[in-house]
Amino acid sequence: MNLNIIDIINKKRLSEELTKEELEYSFNGYLKGIITDYQMSALLMAICINDMSDEEIYNLTDIFINSGDILDLSKVSGIKVDKHSTGGVGDKTTLIVAPIVASCGVKIAKMSGRGLGFTGGTIDKLESIKGFNTTLSKEQFINQLNNINVAISSQTENLTPLDKKIYELRDVTATTESIPLIAVSIMSKKIASGADKILIDIKVGSGALIKSTKDANRLSKIMIKIGKKYNKETRTIITDMDSPLGKSVGNTLEVLEAFEILMGKEKSYLYHVSTILAANLISMAKGITTEEALKEVEIVINNKDAFYKLIELIKAQGGDISTLKISDNVIPIRSNKTGTLKRIDAYKIGILSRNLGAGRITKEDKIDYTVGIVLNKFLGAVINKGDILCYLYVNEESKYSEQEVLDCFEI
Amino acid sequence: MNLNIIDIINKKRLSEELTKEELEYSFNGYLKGIITDYQMSALLMAICINDMSDEEIYNLTDIFINSGDILDLSKVSGIKVDKHSTGGVGDKTTLIVAPIVASCGVKIAKMSGRGLGFTGGTIDKLESIKGFNTTLSKEQFINQLNNINVAISSQTENLTPLDKKIYELRDVTATTESIPLIAVSIMSKKIASGADKILIDIKVGSGALIKSTKDANRLSKIMIKIGKKYNKETRTIITDMDSPLGKSVGNTLEVLEAFEILMGKEKSYLYHVSTILAANLISMAKGITTEEALKEVEIVINNKDAFYKLIELIKAQGGDISTLKISDNVIPIRSNKTGTLKRIDAYKIGILSRNLGAGRITKEDKIDYTVGIVLNKFLGAVINKGDILCYLYVNEESKYSEQEVLDCFEI
Repeated sequence: MNLNIIDIINKKRLSEELTKEELEYSFNGYLKGIITDYQMSALLMAICINDMSDEEIYNLTDIFINSGDILDLSKVSGIKVDKHSTGGVGDKTTLIVAPIVASCGVKIAKMSGRGLGFTGGTIDKLESIKGFNTTLSKEQFINQLNNINVAISSQTENLTPLDKKIYELRDVTATTESIPLIAVSIMSKKIASGADKILIDIKVGSGALIKSTKDANRLSKIMIKIGKKYNKETRTIITDMDSPLGKSVGNTLEVLEAFEILMGKEKSYLYHVSTILAANLISMAKGITTEEALKEVEIVINNKDAFYKLIELIKAQGGDISTLKISDNVIPIRSNKTGTLKRIDAYKIGILSRNLGAGRITKEDKIDYTVGIVLNKFLGAVINKGDILCYLYVNEESKYSEQEVLDCFEI
Repeated sequence: MNLNIIDIINKKRLSEELTKEELEYSFNGYLKGIITDYQMSALLMAICINDMSDEEIYNLTDIFINSGDILDLSKVSGIKVDKHSTGGVGDKTTLIVAPIVASCGVKIAKMSGRGLGFTGGTIDKLESIKGFNTTLSKEQFINQLNNINVAISSQTENLTPLDKKIYELRDVTATTESIPLIAVSIMSKKIASGADKILIDIKVGSGALIKSTKDANRLSKIMIKIGKKYNKETRTIITDMDSPLGKSVGNTLEVLEAFEILMGKEKSYLYHVSTILAANLISMAKGITTEEALKEVEIVINNKDAFYKLIELIKAQGGDISTLKISDNVIPIRSNKTGTLKRIDAYKIGILSRNLGAGRITKEDKIDYTVGIVLNKFLGAVINKGDILCYLYVNEESKYSEQEVLDCFEI
C-alpha cells in the first residue's frame, strides 16, 4: 500500500503508533521538500499532544542521525566530552562550562543551537560577538580541539540537517514543549557530533521547556537509554529553572554575565550549576569522582585560567569582544508594591525578552542582540514601593508594557 | 499585552479556551497572510485534538461570516432554502435534491464546496462537466434563481474567504475531522449565503467525516443553536454513511448516477435519502408537513420534471453534458473468497478513490475527473469466488493494489 502523509498525520491525530517506515516517509520527505511545512507542523502538533512510544522515539532518533553525516573525531586525541542543556531563560552555562573544562585539560566538542520558544540559544548569544564564526568546518573544529581543547559550533548543514529544519519549524509553531521531540533532537545531535561522553543538563520549571519533575525524569531515562544504544556514556543532571538562571536575559547581556562568573566575581546559583556541570564532564573524561573534579574546577576559576580560556576561544573563532554592544536605552522598572519578592517568573521573563527582540516569533525574524533584561532584585529580597526591580535594555518601546514587566515579579 | 501567534497556539495545545480577540488575531491574521500556513495548521491540529467550547465556536463562526460579504438575496422573490451535507463517500445528493426542489417551485440557492479529506465535493463533481461555470457572480446567481429556481456555485472570493482558505489547508493536513471546525465552516458559509432556511444532512459512519452518532448529535445541536443566533430556521437530518452512498464514487461517475436516480431508474437508499432531504426543504419553504412534501417529490420524479430541471441547470451554467468522459481503462476486481458481503468500507473506498486521482493529497493537486469506482455487489449479497465486486476506472495502474481494493469488502 502506498504511504501518504495525510493518512500518517491522521494516525498520529488518533494517537496511533507510527511505524519506522511511516516516520521515514514523513521526516525524510520533509527534509527533501516533498512534505510541506504546514503538513509537518500538523504532525508535530499531533506528536506534542498525543506523545510517542519509546519505539517511535528510537526510530526517529535513528532517522535524524542518518539524515546527515556523523562527525568523526578520531583525529582528536583523548576522550571528547559534550554538554547540552535543554534550555531555559538566562541559561549561559555553556559559555562558562566549556572554558572551565578545557582549561582542566579535557576536550569539549560542543555543537550548540539557536533560540527555541521563549528560551535563548548559545549560538545566538555567541553571534552577539562581532566576527564570531559559529559555523566551523570539520577541519577547523578538529584543529581547534587539538589546539585549545574547546570548539563551539552550530550544527553544520551536514550534521543532522533534519534536526535543524525541524527545530526551526517547532520554534515558530508552539511545538517545542514535547518530551519525545526534545529527546530525539538533543540525542541525535549529540550522537552525530562524535563525542564519547555526553552530559545533559535538564532544566525544570516555569522558565524551561520541561515544566515538571515527572517529565524531566522521563526525558532523563529516555536519553540515557538512547545513549546506551549508541555506546555513548550519558549522564543527566536535573536543575531548577523556575527563576531565570543568573541576573541577565538577552544575548549580549548574557555574554557579559559569563565573563563576570569566570572572573570569580559572583558565587551565585549560576556559579554553582556551572561548576557542577563542569565537574561531571571532567569526572567522566578522567574517570575520577565528581568531588575530585570539583576541586580542579575551583582552581581554574580562582587562577583565572578558565577566564583566559574563554578569551582564547573567542579569538580562535574570530570574535572581537571590544565591539560588544548593549542598547543605550536602559529603562528602570520600579515596584508599585511593598513586600517580599516571592517569585520571578522565568517563563514570563523569557516571553518579555523575546518580545523585546532577543528571540524569534517567525522563522524569518532577526534577533536584536542588544536588548534584554537585567534583574536588580532576587528571591527573598524585601522590596519597597519605588525600588528598581530590573532594567530593560530596549530599542522599541512599543514592544512591552510596564504592567507586563511587573507581572514577572510576585511580591 | 501584545498578542502573538505562538502564545495562542500554545494555549490551545494546553487545552485552554481562546478569547474572541485571540481567535480574531489568529484567523483574520491568517487571511491577511500575517499568520503562516504552518502556524495555522499547528493551531488547527491543536483544535482538532483538544476541541473548542461553544463560546469559541460562536465566536469563530462570527469571524468567518464577517471575513467577507454576506449575500443579499432580497431581490429573489419568495423563501430561499439551502441544503448542505457534511460530506461522505459517493454523496451526490445535491445533484439530485436541488433539481427536485426547484421543480416543486421552491428556490434553492446552493453554495457548494470542493473535496475534503477522503470525501468528494459537489463543485469538483460539477466541474467534470465541461464548461460548467461554478463561480457565478452575484448577479448571475440571483438572476438564475429568479429564472429557474436553482443555482449552484462555489464559494466566491467575497463570501467567507476565510472558510475557503482554512478549508483548503485542513484538506491537506488531516484536520478535517473536527466537530467545531465542521460546524463553523458549514454554518458560516450557509449564513453568509443568504438563504432563509437551512437543512443540514449530517453523515455518520466510517465513510463520513463524523464517525459516531454522539458526534453527530453534538454537531446537530451546535448548528441549530448557531442558526437560531442568526434567525435562520435550521433542520438537521442524520443519515448513514458506513457504506458509500449509491454505487459510484468518483466525479464523472457520480454525475452519471445522479441522472439515473432522477430518471427514476433506481429506488435505492440513495433515492430514499435524496427524497427525504428534498421533502424537508419543501416542507420548510411551504410550511407543509414532510409527508405532504414527499408526495410532491414523487410526482416530479415520475413525470421527469426533476430530470429536465437538472439538464436546464447544467445548460444555464454553461455545461455541456455531451462531453462527459470516464476512463476507458476499466478493471473488474474479482472476489478471492466465497461468502456473504457483510460490509463495504466507505472510508477505504474513499481513500482508494482519492489515490486513483479523484481527490487531492496536496493543495496543488489536480483532480482526475475520469477515474473512480463502480460497485457491482451490495450489502447482503452472496458472493462466489471469482464474482466481480466492483469496477475500477483508472488512468495510472501504479496508484492502487488489488489487495487494497479487496480490503474494502468484508466477506
